[in-house]
Amino acid sequence: MSHGTVRVGRQDPAVLRITLSRPERGNTVDSALIADLHEALDGAEKSDACRLVVLDSPGQVFCNGLDMAESAAEFPAASDHDGDPGRGAAGSAFFGLLRRLTETPRLTLACVDGRVTGGGVGLAAACDLVHTTERGVFSLPEALWGLLPCSVLPFLVRRTGFRTAGSMTLTTLPLTAREAVDRGLADELSPDAAPLVRRLLSRLTKVDARMIGEAKQYLSALHPVTAETERRAVTEFARLAAAPGVREGMARFAAEGRYPWER
Amino acid sequence: MSHGTVRVGRQDPAVLRITLSRPERGNTVDSALIADLHEALDGAEKSDACRLVVLDSPGQVFCNGLDMAESAAEFPAASDHDGDPGRGAAGSAFFGLLRRLTETPRLTLACVDGRVTGGGVGLAAACDLVHTTERGVFSLPEALWGLLPCSVLPFLVRRTGFRTAGSMTLTTLPLTAREAVDRGLADELSPDAAPLVRRLLSRLTKVDARMIGEAKQYLSALHPVTAETERRAVTEFARLAAAPGVREGMARFAAEGRYPWER
Amino acid sequence: MSHGTVRVGRQDPAVLRITLSRPERGNTVDSALIADLHEALDGAEKSDACRLVVLDSPGQVFCNGLDMAESAAEFPAASDHDGDPGRGAAGSAFFGLLRRLTETPRLTLACVDGRVTGGGVGLAAACDLVHTTERGVFSLPEALWGLLPCSVLPFLVRRTGFRTAGSMTLTTLPLTAREAVDRGLADELSPDAAPLVRRLLSRLTKVDARMIGEAKQYLSALHPVTAETERRAVTEFARLAAAPGVREGMARFAAEGRYPWER
Repeated sequence: MSHGTVRVGRQDPAVLRITLSRPERGNTVDSALIADLHEALDGAEKSDACRLVVLDSPGQVFCNGLDMAESAAEFPAASDHDGDPGRGAAGSAFFGLLRRLTETPRLTLACVDGRVTGGGVGLAAACDLVHTTERGVFSLPEALWGLLPCSVLPFLVRRTGFRTAGSMTLTTLPLTAREAVDRGLADELSPDAAPLVRRLLSRLTKVDARMIGEAKQYLSALHPVTAETERRAVTEFARLAAAPGVREGMARFAAEGRYPWER
Repeated sequence: MSHGTVRVGRQDPAVLRITLSRPERGNTVDSALIADLHEALDGAEKSDACRLVVLDSPGQVFCNGLDMAESAAEFPAASDHDGDPGRGAAGSAFFGLLRRLTETPRLTLACVDGRVTGGGVGLAAACDLVHTTERGVFSLPEALWGLLPCSVLPFLVRRTGFRTAGSMTLTTLPLTAREAVDRGLADELSPDAAPLVRRLLSRLTKVDARMIGEAKQYLSALHPVTAETERRAVTEFARLAAAPGVREGMARFAAEGRYPWER
Repeated sequence: MSHGTVRVGRQDPAVLRITLSRPERGNTVDSALIADLHEALDGAEKSDACRLVVLDSPGQVFCNGLDMAESAAEFPAASDHDGDPGRGAAGSAFFGLLRRLTETPRLTLACVDGRVTGGGVGLAAACDLVHTTERGVFSLPEALWGLLPCSVLPFLVRRTGFRTAGSMTLTTLPLTAREAVDRGLADELSPDAAPLVRRLLSRLTKVDARMIGEAKQYLSALHPVTAETERRAVTEFARLAAAPGVREGMARFAAEGRYPWER
């Protein structure tokens, strides 16, 4: 794609595979990745044959969440740029991506084979289905940074219910792949997602293409993620990011790789 | 009952057993079955001694969902009868039956020992408890017909949460009995429902009869299935059924037993 | 604390341990216990170092629910004091305690090692996390008394979803510790809660203190327990308690230890 953050594959016309391909940056979510994912989804939506979008990543990291370097630049210290109208743009773009994943008229399947952190949990939770191998590890460490998974939570609560979304946020402790399945964050744990993909295609290729979008729209209205929820997610994230020390923690991590709690 | 679609048994005054008894038609839901179920529930509600309504079916099929022959007749091709005020009557009657199951002031227990498909999943999900044997298989194949389980989903989402209701709808893949329990569609998996019935009666016979209705009313307000949800379910189902080919698919299946995807 | 219903311990400055300490009364919830729990939470909130509040109880009973003696006195027979403005005060105070547990800016952990009954399930469900040993047994027997767990249910539905909250209320049957974990009422089953406490502290001591409150506030808005829900809980409980025989059942149990169904 345009920014080189993902590779797109189409061995089968019914499947568009989007592979997160910036392992050296932990497949972190920045504006380039968001743009590339939208472009890939555009391709899936333009293809009448496409029924299934697979989102995966080789290697040890599925997605490490928001890109700290970009986020630190996006949210300048409150004292410098208070009231900057650009503030929150990244949060808004990320929420929009999650919403698009839930609304795109294709079945979306996240295939996890490594660490899924922060915003990465949002990418997975916003997909219709989540497959994980034993190597899947899911965590929401935002509170350790003085942040919260504001955009992730509306989609995670919808998927896992309140309890698990809450305990992941509050404790910041990771879930193993087995725990993720037991708590509804993932749907299937097996060494390989390929059999699941085949099982899905055996059905999806018999379904009229427009039905996937119809179903997602009807379902979504039964547990809507409202514009008010979106507004609040973006505002709260910007507010938290503006607190003293938060931006500095992100910037230092981006520059030196040190975590905020390593004073 | 009047239309012979169910048998009603009362060995124990505290239990009314409704047995779906039209196996040759897969216990499909048509206006006759809906009328018979209402009549049976009338009987349960008239009996002060009755605390528990058991809904079961012998044989391999619990319920195959909506009756295709009646549905095809109910939803004429859009070109023929556009705006027919009768359109949607069946959807409305089915939703009303599901609502009644959730509101009747008796404990309702679905005992599943075979296939539960489409609208049949609604019958089970609308009951307070679901027992299943290893033979239970639960699926929502509606999308394969160009339809959606519009009336089923509000009750299924309430029971299983959004994730499982969504994945069953989108993938059309069946859940095994074990999966149904793990995902909250069923409450107990064992070879025989009789011990559960005894356990329930050991408590229910000590409870003042009016409390079951009080409890269901109070609970229902904590997760209401609103009139707006009902209206949308009925309207959407009628709209989908009016799409080109859908009625024809149902009619052909009713006449020839061929599925829509067997072109 | 002032009324001697709980002991408060602080071996670690990051942990405030509240131990329910009136086993001879089954740690029942009355105005004294509610006042003591508020006082203990005041202490936790005043301490900047405190991150975790542990609520536990030695012995066979975690909490037997509302105190029957006080409740019988609180809800006089309808004929005696109809319209008494004091009616419902206990229900309101209990709901307020549950709400406070969900809102206090500390992580709250219930450690269950015995029976948890009625209102006791509310105390556990209102905590952010619930640990249980094999001895944990959870039940909502209110319907047997002509009552409903009105204040418990909004918090229980949020934690376990509708299905389990409903079946516990309707059947009054207990859940084992294993079942409580499978259904999301408890989060972890192990012989000892100490390793979980250590795991939690390894994270919480790295988190800026204010983040716990921020997280709980943000989460709460995604599944709010509204003032209207509270009003309804209190009103309904008072209405049920005023029904003929209910108060008498509580008073007789308080005086003679006989259950209402032992006529």
